[in-house]
Amino acid sequence: MPNDASTQVVSDDQIVLAHGGGGELTRQLVARHFLPKLANGLLDPLTDSAVLEVAAGRLALTTDSYVVQPIRFPGGDIGRLAVCGTVNDLAVSGARPIALTLAVVMEEGLTIGVLDEIVASIAAAAAEADVVVATGDTKVIEHRRGDGLMITTAGIGEVRPDARLDARRIATGDVLVISGRIAEHGLAVMSAREGLAFQTELVSDVAPLSSLVAAMFDSGADLKFLRDPTRGGLAGVSADLVEDTKLTLELEESAIPISRVARHTAELLGIDPLVVANEGKVLTVVPAGDADRLLAAMRSHPLGAHAAAIGRLVPSQPPLVELITRVGGRRIVQRPYGEELPRIC
Amino acid sequence: MPNDASTQVVSDDQIVLAHGGGGELTRQLVARHFLPKLANGLLDPLTDSAVLEVAAGRLALTTDSYVVQPIRFPGGDIGRLAVCGTVNDLAVSGARPIALTLAVVMEEGLTIGVLDEIVASIAAAAAEADVVVATGDTKVIEHRRGDGLMITTAGIGEVRPDARLDARRIATGDVLVISGRIAEHGLAVMSAREGLAFQTELVSDVAPLSSLVAAMFDSGADLKFLRDPTRGGLAGVSADLVEDTKLTLELEESAIPISRVARHTAELLGIDPLVVANEGKVLTVVPAGDADRLLAAMRSHPLGAHAAAIGRLVPSQPPLVELITRVGGRRIVQRPYGEELPRIC
Repeated sequence: MPNDASTQVVSDDQIVLAHGGGGELTRQLVARHFLPKLANGLLDPLTDSAVLEVAAGRLALTTDSYVVQPIRFPGGDIGRLAVCGTVNDLAVSGARPIALTLAVVMEEGLTIGVLDEIVASIAAAAAEADVVVATGDTKVIEHRRGDGLMITTAGIGEVRPDARLDARRIATGDVLVISGRIAEHGLAVMSAREGLAFQTELVSDVAPLSSLVAAMFDSGADLKFLRDPTRGGLAGVSADLVEDTKLTLELEESAIPISRVARHTAELLGIDPLVVANEGKVLTVVPAGDADRLLAAMRSHPLGAHAAAIGRLVPSQPPLVELITRVGGRRIVQRPYGEELPRIC
Repeated sequence: MPNDASTQVVSDDQIVLAHGGGGELTRQLVARHFLPKLANGLLDPLTDSAVLEVAAGRLALTTDSYVVQPIRFPGGDIGRLAVCGTVNDLAVSGARPIALTLAVVMEEGLTIGVLDEIVASIAAAAAEADVVVATGDTKVIEHRRGDGLMITTAGIGEVRPDARLDARRIATGDVLVISGRIAEHGLAVMSAREGLAFQTELVSDVAPLSSLVAAMFDSGADLKFLRDPTRGGLAGVSADLVEDTKLTLELEESAIPISRVARHTAELLGIDPLVVANEGKVLTVVPAGDADRLLAAMRSHPLGAHAAAIGRLVPSQPPLVELITRVGGRRIVQRPYGEELPRIC
């Protein structure tokens, strides 16, 4: 137990290195600032591992680190991003999320108030995605700029028995469907960072996609491919699709949903919206005959209101991603090379 | 595909921000510097999640971030530490490790040669622990000091059907057993950091404990409690044990295994070795009558050669951790408050 002297040296409103020592201060930090918001039967015992019962079957396992700057941006924050990113990786693997792990690396100097906000956001996003934070870890690193917080989430999920995701099943004539408007996450973060005047209009799309994806499976459409176009954007996933199928992907620019403000912002920043990260969109490939019922199911979900068929696979060789532009021209879309937008997720 | 111009701007021997963009450079980094060493059937498809078959039963899930400085230290490095730490958290939950996730946050400026060494170390530790890295993620953050690398691992494991770990089963007379010499990890890292003259003699104990723990269960001893005394050391776990059982723990100082060099180093640094982190030791509580067969099983394992019974639970109230010193005195051992040794793991 701390004595009065040692209690007094520790600031009540900022993270200090001692919060990472694994002693009484670490316990207090977790007990006061994590457990009350994240409480659930798996997390509460604070043992080395959470233990849960699973049924026999296919289990999906995923992880991502989040280093976004700033940690709060229009439409979300690093906590919501970390929960949604991992939930979405499970969802696009055809899995129902079961449990998440949460590892937080805090920078000395982070204010406790900001930490509380982020943890509340994690709790809200987990509730929205119907998943629990089952186990976690906290570490503290030295002062840098005083606003640092990095989060790594991992997640496990039960793969749906009816999931038959396999790019090798994709054939000529299949269509590419997206769940909504592109480029909003990356542009919102970038605008917030640069302090652009219109930043308040742009909001990240960060959201948990698990219930939308469940509705897509439940529509009966034959989903052959599912991906969330995060880093690398629509261009990156399109490049993967072409590489995996050895078919050409024709994208119809006029069919790709994008808001006026996002298009305008991308032009202003000189960035192709096709390469910008999304955090609440899903791409799928289905036989052309399944597109209508799939789109109907997606559009009746709040996160799929702007779902659209945006491209199709054709046999042209060599396999390329071709954008049919609004004026009827064609341009080749390449996988982004390096980093268009650093620390966007 | 990159064109020549964009290829030329990227250094071949250092991490740059563009390696974190999720584009072609990220793919190359993973393909050249992670996959060749970590290759396995789960990781190779590089999908959003690894998918594996599991049997029905209890699954353990755990995570930890590793921020140790320096990232290479006598006896190990951050890669070995990250694998062993997560394997050990599963082991002390009574679980056989099945798969790990690996999330790496690299600082711009990290040399590729160092990264290669760390990835090789991860691969070697995973092989030693008989576990695969099933999925992963890489991110890059801005330059700080040029040597930064943080790793977060999560792990899943199958809980042994015979595991009955529950501190509420602990009774007066039960004994506390440790698998070997204390304080070696924390002191080795601290000595390396401070450049102490005798640093070469001190080596971290970082090791995967899963096979030792399996041997402990297989001995038939009734293991009621298992913990690896990492941050907070033996003192931290002892405090937890007392808090959980409401019994007093009497530790026999003369029975606690510690090397001469570790004791000497701790004295020199002014640190109580009881609070120093270990990364290759396990603590267990068993009925007194089971101690001999447990110790025999542990001592026939390479990681348990110095196993010893070091304490016992007694009914004295209030519940405390009492150290019976070499000279026969008694002192109360407290949970460390803050951080004795920052960034030790």
